[in-house]
Amino acid sequence: MNNKVTSDKSSATWVGIDWGTTNIRAYLLDASARILDKHTLARHIKDCNDDGWTTVYQTLIEGWNVTDETPVIICGMAGSKFGWVEAPYASCPAGVSDLVAKAVHPDDIENIMILPGLCCKDDRGNHDVIRGEETQLLGLFEQSSLITRLICAPGTHTKWISADNYTVRNFHTTMTGELFGLLTEHSILAQSIAKSSSSAVGAKFEDGVRMAAEGGGLLADIFKVRANSLFNELNPEDAGDFLSGILVGTDVFQEVSSLDHGLVSVPLIGPKPLSERYARALSHFGIEGIVLDAEELTIAGLASVARQMGIVETSHVA
Amino acid sequence: MNNKVTSDKSSATWVGIDWGTTNIRAYLLDASARILDKHTLARHIKDCNDDGWTTVYQTLIEGWNVTDETPVIICGMAGSKFGWVEAPYASCPAGVSDLVAKAVHPDDIENIMILPGLCCKDDRGNHDVIRGEETQLLGLFEQSSLITRLICAPGTHTKWISADNYTVRNFHTTMTGELFGLLTEHSILAQSIAKSSSSAVGAKFEDGVRMAAEGGGLLADIFKVRANSLFNELNPEDAGDFLSGILVGTDVFQEVSSLDHGLVSVPLIGPKPLSERYARALSHFGIEGIVLDAEELTIAGLASVARQMGIVETSHVA
Repeated sequence: MNNKVTSDKSSATWVGIDWGTTNIRAYLLDASARILDKHTLARHIKDCNDDGWTTVYQTLIEGWNVTDETPVIICGMAGSKFGWVEAPYASCPAGVSDLVAKAVHPDDIENIMILPGLCCKDDRGNHDVIRGEETQLLGLFEQSSLITRLICAPGTHTKWISADNYTVRNFHTTMTGELFGLLTEHSILAQSIAKSSSSAVGAKFEDGVRMAAEGGGLLADIFKVRANSLFNELNPEDAGDFLSGILVGTDVFQEVSSLDHGLVSVPLIGPKPLSERYARALSHFGIEGIVLDAEELTIAGLASVARQMGIVETSHVA
Repeated sequence: MNNKVTSDKSSATWVGIDWGTTNIRAYLLDASARILDKHTLARHIKDCNDDGWTTVYQTLIEGWNVTDETPVIICGMAGSKFGWVEAPYASCPAGVSDLVAKAVHPDDIENIMILPGLCCKDDRGNHDVIRGEETQLLGLFEQSSLITRLICAPGTHTKWISADNYTVRNFHTTMTGELFGLLTEHSILAQSIAKSSSSAVGAKFEDGVRMAAEGGGLLADIFKVRANSLFNELNPEDAGDFLSGILVGTDVFQEVSSLDHGLVSVPLIGPKPLSERYARALSHFGIEGIVLDAEELTIAGLASVARQMGIVETSHVA
């Protein structure tokens, strides 16, 4: 539990909670969506089921004057199938009003609402899902200075989102981050890659991106990590960076090569070190990656919902 | 140990051994490269190091009249870095004489030769390696009826080989099989895929190939296994087949889309069920996959080496 009082808590009017798979962040907010206080809790959603969701929730809001009338808006895994209560996905295209309309109340607690994730279907009838990022997208929509044609949310499962006019049109998921983990931990490549805690991007990352950009294909490119290591032309310290470059580069190449021309920049919403890797890969294709603060966007997204519900004052932007 | 006498062993003149990572197959052969007897042994190369290679070798040839003069030709992992003795890779382009020239003798035993693998470099300076398949390729070269422009050896690490005029020109490795294993065992997709022992190819395999053929990219396609499962449009029994279709389809698509036109058929050398999947994926692109017997080709390849050394009579073909 990490308590940091940033302001006078007496002006609090609502609570926003970002309930992730392993971490929960609760914000005490005022009518202008200013953060008055923040509580964070490391708790896996599996443990929430064991401990009881209400108990965990009470821990989160401890010391705050939250009554049965205080609006509490929750996004993320609390609404998943294995969460507090399932909030079935809202279908794309969707904006803030669609998310509000599909929100659910856990245990019939009227003042607590859990936002749904989003689902969509591609031309071939294949599904895709998002949960958590949809709220960050609402936050992004508040920033009118950004043209939101294509957005990227890098992560274990990277999301590529098409959006316009405050609306998520479509998206798809790539398993880039998870694949990096699988290959470095469990594959034959593991013996070529040093276990390093550094997140700094080395020169070999660029080599990986360059290889990916030539379009030889991921299935072939990744084996070069092993073969080049066998010939001592790739040392274990660089091998992880090279693989990361291949994966992120393939992800970006696949995305931008199917785009019509004219894309100038892509907002990036995700862990900063990974977003920076995506920005470097994007720059290889002449596109600027704009690294954004994911937490800030989540709060802006929760505020967008609160505004829609009349809890927060109308901004000049939206 | 599996002993099956197929003929009179007294006409034996040499021994061929396919020494794989987990399985060893030894053949007693005559001057026409006919198999007189076969011994197989399930022994990991790690265990060979513990037990002693000479001991394992003695077990393999037990009951055969093998003297210090009997030529013994070994291919495969016995020549790897962690094998009996390292046989450094021969560089492409390479044919049978190059393999013979780079063969090594373990423990200075003159009558035993271990064949090297092959290495090559692509235009960008990236390395690749083969060990074991090079002998099957020599075997394939004996079959003059096959045009050997592009050859595929499906497996944990699939090899795509360019060859002509009895010579391996170039090749590259794709991690298709290993990736299938990683994703079905360790990834988020695992919970969507039933553990099935059936190797029969279902309809969903074709769906996966079709998706891959549209070129949306592997990183995105594989997540559809999960998302379609979430919406009950893919059941656990079919999900593995769908994933297999995506992976094999991507591998084949990546290969044939970069080819100049006119490729009619591709010889396939590998485990039969997997080769059949590659054949189905190839047929989707209008190319005939010719499923070959990998063991037969290995023996033909060992015989090709034996012929080069004057141990086996010259055939009409080579």
